[in-house]
Parts: sequence; structure tokens; C-alpha cells
Amino acid sequence: MSLSKTPYRGTRDFFPAQKRERDYLFATMTKIAYRFGYESYDGPLLEEVELYKAKSGEELINEQIYSFVDRGERFVAIRPEMTPTLARMVAQIHRETPKPIRWFSLPNLMRYEKPQRGRLREHWQLNCDLFGGPAALSEAEILSLLVQILNELGATQEHFEILINDRRIVDGLFQTKLKLEEAVIYRLYKIIDKSKKVSAEALTKMITELQLTTEAEELFQEYLNLKTINDLQAFLKKTDLEQTAQEFQSFWDYSIAFGVAPYLQYDPTIVRGLDYYTGIVFEAFDKNPENRRALCGGGAYSSLLKIFNEEPVPGVGFGLGDVTLTDFLKTHKLMPDLSKPVNDLFLSCQDDAGLTSVIAVSQSLRKRGLNLVVGLEAIKMKKVFSSAEKSGAAFVGLMGSDEITKKELQLKNLATGEQKSFALNDCDGMENFLKG
Amino acid sequence: MSLSKTPYRGTRDFFPAQKRERDYLFATMTKIAYRFGYESYDGPLLEEVELYKAKSGEELINEQIYSFVDRGERFVAIRPEMTPTLARMVAQIHRETPKPIRWFSLPNLMRYEKPQRGRLREHWQLNCDLFGGPAALSEAEILSLLVQILNELGATQEHFEILINDRRIVDGLFQTKLKLEEAVIYRLYKIIDKSKKVSAEALTKMITELQLTTEAEELFQEYLNLKTINDLQAFLKKTDLEQTAQEFQSFWDYSIAFGVAPYLQYDPTIVRGLDYYTGIVFEAFDKNPENRRALCGGGAYSSLLKIFNEEPVPGVGFGLGDVTLTDFLKTHKLMPDLSKPVNDLFLSCQDDAGLTSVIAVSQSLRKRGLNLVVGLEAIKMKKVFSSAEKSGAAFVGLMGSDEITKKELQLKNLATGEQKSFALNDCDGMENFLKG
Repeated sequence: MSLSKTPYRGTRDFFPAQKRERDYLFATMTKIAYRFGYESYDGPLLEEVELYKAKSGEELINEQIYSFVDRGERFVAIRPEMTPTLARMVAQIHRETPKPIRWFSLPNLMRYEKPQRGRLREHWQLNCDLFGGPAALSEAEILSLLVQILNELGATQEHFEILINDRRIVDGLFQTKLKLEEAVIYRLYKIIDKSKKVSAEALTKMITELQLTTEAEELFQEYLNLKTINDLQAFLKKTDLEQTAQEFQSFWDYSIAFGVAPYLQYDPTIVRGLDYYTGIVFEAFDKNPENRRALCGGGAYSSLLKIFNEEPVPGVGFGLGDVTLTDFLKTHKLMPDLSKPVNDLFLSCQDDAGLTSVIAVSQSLRKRGLNLVVGLEAIKMKKVFSSAEKSGAAFVGLMGSDEITKKELQLKNLATGEQKSFALNDCDGMENFLKG
Repeated sequence: MSLSKTPYRGTRDFFPAQKRERDYLFATMTKIAYRFGYESYDGPLLEEVELYKAKSGEELINEQIYSFVDRGERFVAIRPEMTPTLARMVAQIHRETPKPIRWFSLPNLMRYEKPQRGRLREHWQLNCDLFGGPAALSEAEILSLLVQILNELGATQEHFEILINDRRIVDGLFQTKLKLEEAVIYRLYKIIDKSKKVSAEALTKMITELQLTTEAEELFQEYLNLKTINDLQAFLKKTDLEQTAQEFQSFWDYSIAFGVAPYLQYDPTIVRGLDYYTGIVFEAFDKNPENRRALCGGGAYSSLLKIFNEEPVPGVGFGLGDVTLTDFLKTHKLMPDLSKPVNDLFLSCQDDAGLTSVIAVSQSLRKRGLNLVVGLEAIKMKKVFSSAEKSGAAFVGLMGSDEITKKELQLKNLATGEQKSFALNDCDGMENFLKG
């Protein structure tokens, strides 16, 4: 019997070249998160299913999670997202932890998806969250963190935009201004969610079916047609949503201060998870129409800890997945060439009698912080350079029978062609040449 | 209803302080792996159960893995170890990849364990493997990699030792010298495995039950009493296992060249997985008798790819888990104090009117590579310094009403007490002061 060599459906084997791409993304994300003072955390791979049900409701649970009963009769799931774990952890420590809390994580997550472009069963997701800060500044900061990560990866306004909305606007319109019933509001949210995917006729039909007052129907249609921040401010003034207008203006002012405003595009159809978000909501999109998927989604929420019977702690956060991000970077040719490793030196001997010396030298150079690939048997001259090239080494070390007799080795700079002999005990000289 | 805030049994919440410890371990492991030219890889969280059965047999599968049937009727498991995934990946690429292949990974793994000190259900494990190199040198190199990782973490000969054996010795004694039947050999291996855990009487009783010849019984007892490399070489000579003696001597010579010999202690009771290892086998142990658990285990194997009907590619590798390693480092007080984050600057204003300026300055300093925590609302002078201290910042930035008027901010070095005013647009001056 022969086993399959392919990975489980919807998951990936990360051979070194692919792993270097992932490492590059994660190192960049981590570097920028540290610039903003975010601290890294992680949680368990498994959580009890109850936790996901409490946060996301039955639908996600029944259709999309990898759940099973463990040997101790616990109903558990492989984490499909990080937020419930984050909520559980923050619930443990928020009382005694100074605010704001700034955390990020890079977990592997699994969802039972039908694999397709941009969507796999296992993916990694950067999660950044800020708890307990004032709303407008926190929202602007988290957007700035996102923008700077994408900037550091080489992406600019030419490549992506962030569509934003504010749940306080939609809630203000439906509740404060139009005083609609909860069931109607729920259906209006569903209509908003679908509005970009259906024709104008279908949209009008869905709205008409709700039998709203003429005023409500007109305002709702007007809302759906808002295109800019200026449109929005005029609309908020007209609908007497003064407080919401002020809150949004405050967020907007801080977005300018953080330098993120040029990336933001108002979009009334962005509402995201109905029961979860309470303030700014946003989605980052590739501007290339061929890769029109959300790169990232997030927003402000206030009752994350409710499921633990804890007092509300306002938060704002986003998730940025590795699959769509990699597609995005490659579409725009922003992913660096990481097909080869990077090493300082490929060290070889051309005669087995040199092996022990080569090992001794390699150990000395490693202690000096150099990265070395050592040939573990004699390598013929004509093969050395192609092997060195594949190892991504900047220098080659050679030791033939002449060098063995003279207790020397040759180092050659592959970029400049410069070549030099060193006594085997002259590690200072070798280090200088290699780092030179 | 209120949900539990505790993590799933046998798993851990990594709050930032714990996560920094894990990051410190992983960064050190990765740095040293790169010094040896090892390339990072990763695989899927789930594999088909058949893969684990093929490698480890039914026992592990039935008792210790997290397995379940997915929604597509595939019988899958959360990876309990990395080797089967590694084998699957190497089987895909070994034909066209230059040897030796040097790879490492740092996966999270799950086993259904009864949680106890040093043993949890979810852990992380460094896996380092070298394929296709000559046996003796490859074995010595992988041991050197392990030793240098532990050295870099501060551990020396005072703290740990590596018990080694060679499966060719045991197989040579049983097969070549004594010509025992397979069933007897299997029982002798089980006796070796138990020999340290039972009394001398119980051991003798187990051996007697096998009804070996007098010569065989005496040689086996003599084998079990070998204490040093010298004992071993004399024993191999006496038993006419010349080739094995040469192979072991070659390994030993290279261990001296790599500088790892002082860490090695011969131990005839180390045999490890019966059907898997074929050369050197080893386990690293804490020398502290209170923490007498294997930190790490590994060895040389030759038929890893057999389950894929692929030609044999010799390999040698080890696994080093984070749970026992953390216990080990803490027992010996080798874990650095990572209770606080590290930041360059805690930047605050004492009046909300300064917030926009503080944001603008923070963004400029971030672009210069500095790590900043910014207060998102005015912070009173008497609270600033304790907040800054908790953020692990080296400097504090202050902006009261005076500074706002003068368009300045004050930076204070928390270590030296030195304090200086800077114009808000003097980011060069601030950068120089902060980078000291």
C-alpha cells in the first residue's frame, strides 16, 4: 500500500520557499505591531464549542467549524477564528491590566470551507486589537497600524483602499431617526449586506416588501447612495444625528492626524457582523478588479466580554489573513523573490582529509554569528559553485589538497570574484573578509 | 449563562509575558538553525490518520491522537508529531533536491495526554532533520546543532547531558553476534527499555524467562553494564563487531571535531522507537535529579520514505519540546525576565489639546524604526511614570500646556534621568536622543 503524498484538502505544505514568504509576512507584521507597542499573545488550538456558539451563533458552528467530542466527552473545536479566545483571555485579566490593552496574534485557524482562490481550510491570520481606549483615537490608531503593515509590504494607495462605515450611523438612522422595530432593522441590515450583489430592481423590490413609510424608504435609499465623507456629513445633519456626526468627525480628524485618511473610502454597504460591531467598521480591498476580495476586515465592538458576564470593555480590531494577502502581494508583484535561502558561506573541501578542519573552522565562524552550509563530504571543484549558488551563499570556502598541506583555506566572494587564502586558525581574518 | 474562562484541559493561554518566553525560545532556536544552514518548513495541522498509522502503528493512534471524521468522511487527526508530515513532504521533493537536505520546523502539536509536569496536550516542538548526508558526520552535526541551541539559551555541561547509543550496536549484538530470532530480539528490546525502571532481581528474572544460551545471557548482561565509550569499544572488539566499532569511532571522532563529545554519555539503555531508528539514538537530560525528564530525543533512521514506496533516504533528526525546555530553563534560572515588554518611548500629553501633535510625532518616530506606546488621552504627570514603567519604555515623552504653547515636547531618559526639550518638527533631534 502506498500513502498519498498530497496534503489534506484545503491545507498547504510550506516547503522552504513558501515558508520564507510566510516568515516574511509575519516578520513584517510583527515589526510594525511592535512599532505601535502591541504585545504578542497566543491561545489554545482547541476551545469548547460553547465559546464559539456564544460569540457567533449556531450557523457558523453547524456549517463551518471542525468540531468533535474528545475522549473526555468535551465538545471541542479547532479554532476557526481568534476573537473568542481573545475574549476569554481578556476576560481573565482586564480588571487589573492598565488600559489601553494592545495585543496581536498570528494563529493558524481552520474552517470547513470549499477551497477556492483566496479561501482555504487552514490559514493564518494576524489579529490586532486595542481595548479600553477612547473610541475615535483607538479606531484611527488601529487603521494606521493596518495601513503601515501594508505600506511596509510595499503596498500603497495605488494598490489598496479601505472601505469604512460606522455602525452608529446605521443604528442612528434606523433607531433614533426612524424609530423602526427590531425585526425591520434586522431585515434592513440584510438588505444592506446584499445591496452590492443584486440589481437595482431587485434591491427596490426587497425594500418595497418591507412597507416602510415614504420618508423611511426615501432616507434609506438616500443612505445607500452616499458616496463620500461630505455626502455623509450632510446626510447626518439633515437627519438630526448630531452626536453621530460629531463622533464621526472626531474619528475623521484623528485619521488625518495618523495619515490614514487618504486610504479611506466611505461605503454605506459595509456593516459586518450584525450583533458584534458597534462603531467604525472597515474592510481593506485590493484595487485590482481581478482580485476583488476583502484583504482584511475589522471594526469597533463594545460587548465582547458579555458572554463571560463581565463589564463591557470597548475594543477595536482587525484580522488580516495570509492567503488573500499573499494573492494580493503576488498580483501586484510586491512579494520579494524568496525562492532561495540566504547564507553567508558555503564551506567545502575537495578532499575528505579536509573534513575535520572544515568542521572546526565552521564552528568558529558560527560562534561569530555567521550562517554556514558545510559540505559533509568532499565536493569536486566543478560542482562546488552550483551547490553554493543553490544554498544562497554569498561566499564559497574551498580546501583542496594544497590547502590541506598548507593548513589553509580559500574564501571567494561570489559577487565580486575576490578570492583570498587564510590560515585555518585565522578566524578573525575570515570573519572580516566575510562580513566586509 | 456564563462561560468558563479557563483554557481547554492541557493547553495554555499565552498572555504577553508567557508569549515573550516562547518567542525567546523560538527566536534562539531559529537563529542557531540558520547558523547551520537549516531551512524552515511547515505543514498542515491535519493529516489523514492512515499516515500516522503507517509510521507509528495502532497504539499511538488509538490512545493518543485527536482524531475525527470530517464532513467529507475523511478520517483525520490533529498532528501529534511532525515526522509523518516531514516524510510526506520529503517524499515529494527528494529526487530533485540537492543533498543533504537540512530542514527545521516549529509546529504546535496535540496528544491526548493526562496533563502533568512536563507533559501537556498541546505543545510546540522544534524538529530538526538532515537527509542524505554521510551517517557519522550527519549525526555529529545534528548533535552539535542541539548543543549550540541549548548553549545559546545559557545551558552548559553543568546543566545537561546527552545520553547516546547506536542501534547498530544492539542490532549487531543480537543479529550478527548472537543470531537470535526476531521474536526474542523484540522481547530483549522491551527489557532494555524497562531496565532502568525495575530492580536488578526483576531484570534478571525477565532475562532468565527468555531461556537464552549462557553466552547470550552473559553478553547481554555485560552489554547492559557498559558505562563509557571505552567500555563500549572493548565490548565491540570482544564480540567481533568490527564494522560497528569503526562506524561508532567515526561518529565519535566527528563529535570531537564538532566539540559535542564532552556532552555525550554512553548509555546502553537508550534505544527509542523500535521500528524506526537505525543508527545513533540519543536523549538530552537535565542533570538536576528533580527534573529528570528527557528534554529532547532523536536519532538516525533510514526508511522514513518506505511508507510512500520511495527509495530509502537516510536521515537524522531530533525533537525539542517547549514544555520540558521551559521547565529546564526555569529550574536552572536560565530564563531571562520577560515579564515586561520592551519599548523605546512612552509618549504622552498632559492636556487633550496635545493629542494631535503627539500622534504626528509618534508617526514620524515610527517611520524611523522606533517602538512607541502612545497615551490616547491626557495623562496626569503623577501617573505618567508608572504607566511608562509598565510599558517597558526606556524614555518618556511629555507635553503639558507650556509645551503645547511652545510647540515642543520633553523627552526623558528613564535610566539616566536626562531630560531635553525638542521642537515638534525636530524629529532628527528626538531620534538621536532616543537612540542615544
